[in-house]
Amino acid sequence: MSSGPLKAVVLLSGGMDSATCLAIARAQGFACYALSFRYGQRHAIELEAAARLAAAHRVVEHRIVEIDLRAFGGSALTADVAVPKDRDAAAMATGIPITYVPARNTIFLSYALAWAELLDAHDIYIGVNAVDYSGYPDCRPEFIAAFQATARLGTRLTDLTVRAPLTKLSKADIIAKGNALGVDFGLTRSCYDPGHDGAGCGHCDACTLRLRGFEQLGLVDPAPYVGGAQ
Amino acid sequence: MSSGPLKAVVLLSGGMDSATCLAIARAQGFACYALSFRYGQRHAIELEAAARLAAAHRVVEHRIVEIDLRAFGGSALTADVAVPKDRDAAAMATGIPITYVPARNTIFLSYALAWAELLDAHDIYIGVNAVDYSGYPDCRPEFIAAFQATARLGTRLTDLTVRAPLTKLSKADIIAKGNALGVDFGLTRSCYDPGHDGAGCGHCDACTLRLRGFEQLGLVDPAPYVGGAQ
Repeated sequence: MSSGPLKAVVLLSGGMDSATCLAIARAQGFACYALSFRYGQRHAIELEAAARLAAAHRVVEHRIVEIDLRAFGGSALTADVAVPKDRDAAAMATGIPITYVPARNTIFLSYALAWAELLDAHDIYIGVNAVDYSGYPDCRPEFIAAFQATARLGTRLTDLTVRAPLTKLSKADIIAKGNALGVDFGLTRSCYDPGHDGAGCGHCDACTLRLRGFEQLGLVDPAPYVGGAQ
Repeated sequence: MSSGPLKAVVLLSGGMDSATCLAIARAQGFACYALSFRYGQRHAIELEAAARLAAAHRVVEHRIVEIDLRAFGGSALTADVAVPKDRDAAAMATGIPITYVPARNTIFLSYALAWAELLDAHDIYIGVNAVDYSGYPDCRPEFIAAFQATARLGTRLTDLTVRAPLTKLSKADIIAKGNALGVDFGLTRSCYDPGHDGAGCGHCDACTLRLRGFEQLGLVDPAPYVGGAQ
């Protein structure tokens, strides 16, 4: 056994969910190693947010891995497809969103696993949420459990735990949890179609869910939006 | 349903195992999409072999994805560590080899899964072998089964099959199978420490296992070796 706090690899996108997830990992006493990806997404502004969050929450190290999901094309987050706007909850809940990236969380978790094995970290945190994004198959608890089983068989980390503490929380719950743990949501970015200065559009699914969450708590989202506060 | 033959994504390293695996997929009637990786390995010569094999076996498409496993360091295949030579079977069978790359097959299968989902291919082939490389946890049948379960939960491909037809074959079995299916093993490369012209060293674990396989069948390995035929 190495001395010092136990290590955890934390997937950090720069959005509010992974920011809260990082704060939870820190509150649970882990020395955190944050992992972000540059994957041809249009909103690289998220990576700047990830770097600010990594510093604010004092991770031991923050690595950004380049991966080319564009080689596999075909989703609004990586290709030149229009982002849907102003959809209601019923429309968002229907089927797999066009913003879905094939096998994205499987790829992200695989890289996290490689780093965890190298660090001898026995915990991986991922901020997936099955409530607001029920259309993404790779955000479901049964997917996370299956990946954990695969990871235990495929590496030396036979007791690895993949922690997804936000799975059953609503967006309002996540915001309340993050506020309790000192997350500055003004540092986070979630928009699928941000302005050039990184301000949220206020109308894509991610902005809609986020703004509704703050509204439900009677709070104002501290992040910038195109045209000012929403 | 689309018309025409069913599609399969085939992981193709350029070694003899994946070459045989590709030939099996073709023999089973699949339209094959070959996927290779450039991952900072010292033996990029394998990728030239993969391209030759992809052409010889008439794949529909061959893609090479760049991934940076060096970011996670620490193995003889990607870092500047000496490759062990002239080890006997007992030494090779002990523990996890230093040529092990953390979570490599998990990462490779994740990319294959992304492409499979995009292609609507319901089959992935991987040429892992649990006999000669028992020290690699991510070559075991239970790992492959667990990855398949994860993949079915994490994508639209709820009936995806991960096929590992070489799992229980010896190296000699693989060579015999490949010969029966018309694989030109002279096109394949396996060496962990090849000469500048791509010739095998004849002494690393991969060369040792390969040469022993041909020898057991009373055949000569048609691939080039440093200093001529072994």
